[in-house]
Amino acid sequence: MHIDILTLFPEMFEGVLQNSIMKRAREQQAFSYDYINFRDYTTSKHNKVDDYPYGGGAGLVLSPQPIFDSIEAIQEKAEKQPRVVLLCPQGEPYNQQKAEELSEEDHLVFICGHYEGYDERIRQELVTDEISIGDYVLTGGELGAMVVIDSVVRLLPGVLGNEQSAPMDSFSNGLLEHPHYTRPADFRGMKVPDVLLSGNHAKIDEWRHKESLKRTFERRPDLLEKKELSDKEKTWLDEWEK
Amino acid sequence: MHIDILTLFPEMFEGVLQNSIMKRAREQQAFSYDYINFRDYTTSKHNKVDDYPYGGGAGLVLSPQPIFDSIEAIQEKAEKQPRVVLLCPQGEPYNQQKAEELSEEDHLVFICGHYEGYDERIRQELVTDEISIGDYVLTGGELGAMVVIDSVVRLLPGVLGNEQSAPMDSFSNGLLEHPHYTRPADFRGMKVPDVLLSGNHAKIDEWRHKESLKRTFERRPDLLEKKELSDKEKTWLDEWEK
Repeated sequence: MHIDILTLFPEMFEGVLQNSIMKRAREQQAFSYDYINFRDYTTSKHNKVDDYPYGGGAGLVLSPQPIFDSIEAIQEKAEKQPRVVLLCPQGEPYNQQKAEELSEEDHLVFICGHYEGYDERIRQELVTDEISIGDYVLTGGELGAMVVIDSVVRLLPGVLGNEQSAPMDSFSNGLLEHPHYTRPADFRGMKVPDVLLSGNHAKIDEWRHKESLKRTFERRPDLLEKKELSDKEKTWLDEWEK
Repeated sequence: MHIDILTLFPEMFEGVLQNSIMKRAREQQAFSYDYINFRDYTTSKHNKVDDYPYGGGAGLVLSPQPIFDSIEAIQEKAEKQPRVVLLCPQGEPYNQQKAEELSEEDHLVFICGHYEGYDERIRQELVTDEISIGDYVLTGGELGAMVVIDSVVRLLPGVLGNEQSAPMDSFSNGLLEHPHYTRPADFRGMKVPDVLLSGNHAKIDEWRHKESLKRTFERRPDLLEKKELSDKEKTWLDEWEK
């Protein structure tokens, strides 16, 4: 996978892309990336990339020209047209399913505005996916792009070893994860549940499944509405609802 | 506000915290931060901070001891007990309201695990807020902490100038933002809506309000369920529903 990042602040990304799993993924050639500083493409005399909004109001708006020209430069070199992702609070709410979908692509482009709005014509003509990473406001699109990149790259073949992937399976089965415990079995009087020390794997699996469902029921009942429940799960839920 | 960040990867944060608005906010002393590498607190012979899960399974789990000791070292120095935030997919979904709530605090502590799970006793005893930034899986809690810090710090007094704050008002009135346009009025045949060039501010305000509601209706009807609607908004919605 190749990733192009349109940003005025490439240095914001380096700590995230040059450490730990992302660093190793790049070294393994699971993905590559380039920064495109779209200020390099502006035709404005004063190197501007934004301007006042039509209709008045505070705040600046990213001008269409530098973004159109940057994206077209990428498209001209590309054999197949890339997905073009715009990070913004108005976008489709990002989730694990979307991460899996994007991880199938060969080429992704991210447009990161920084405290400005985007000229609507950018959305209408260039962008294939408007994504919001959550219902909160950030100073720019950079952190959103990093979140999407991290969640997508970790899904690429060979990036995660077995030892890393397993504990992160929230959402993959539609439920939140069950509790985890490690040594010591008694930490300052707080004890690990007996079942986990029992060595009875059938019982441990059942305990984990039940705790996973219980946590989802208590914290995120909205996730259960989307899930197909087994008979056993229905029985547990009936119990708790009483 | 002071922020303590428990992480094994402090260098991941630097690009985000040392650029643009976050950098200026720190220079203005709107906030300060420290990294705590919790490996420094481990009493394990081999400097380990994680261990195999009780009950078996792949993946490692963060041990309670280094986290308990790090947090207690912070608490001993603090005059008032800080909020302790754990980033994890099982947490409460983060939103703008939560960002506003956290921005009222004097002291926040973030616990960032990295591809491990957390020993449950950390959640039960130390953590005041379990937060999920969205329904997707990341390689660690670091990006989640950066997202929360960015969204909270930008709300601190004096951090955002007027020119930056206005276009980011999605969610603050319960609606997604209306479209923005800037020059040129005609870009490759794509024209700015006439009303924005009219100079009639009452009409412009009404257009923006209507477009904002329309975008929310089309993309995020779930947000409308939580909002108190005016009579005018109800009339518009009735129109579109037909």
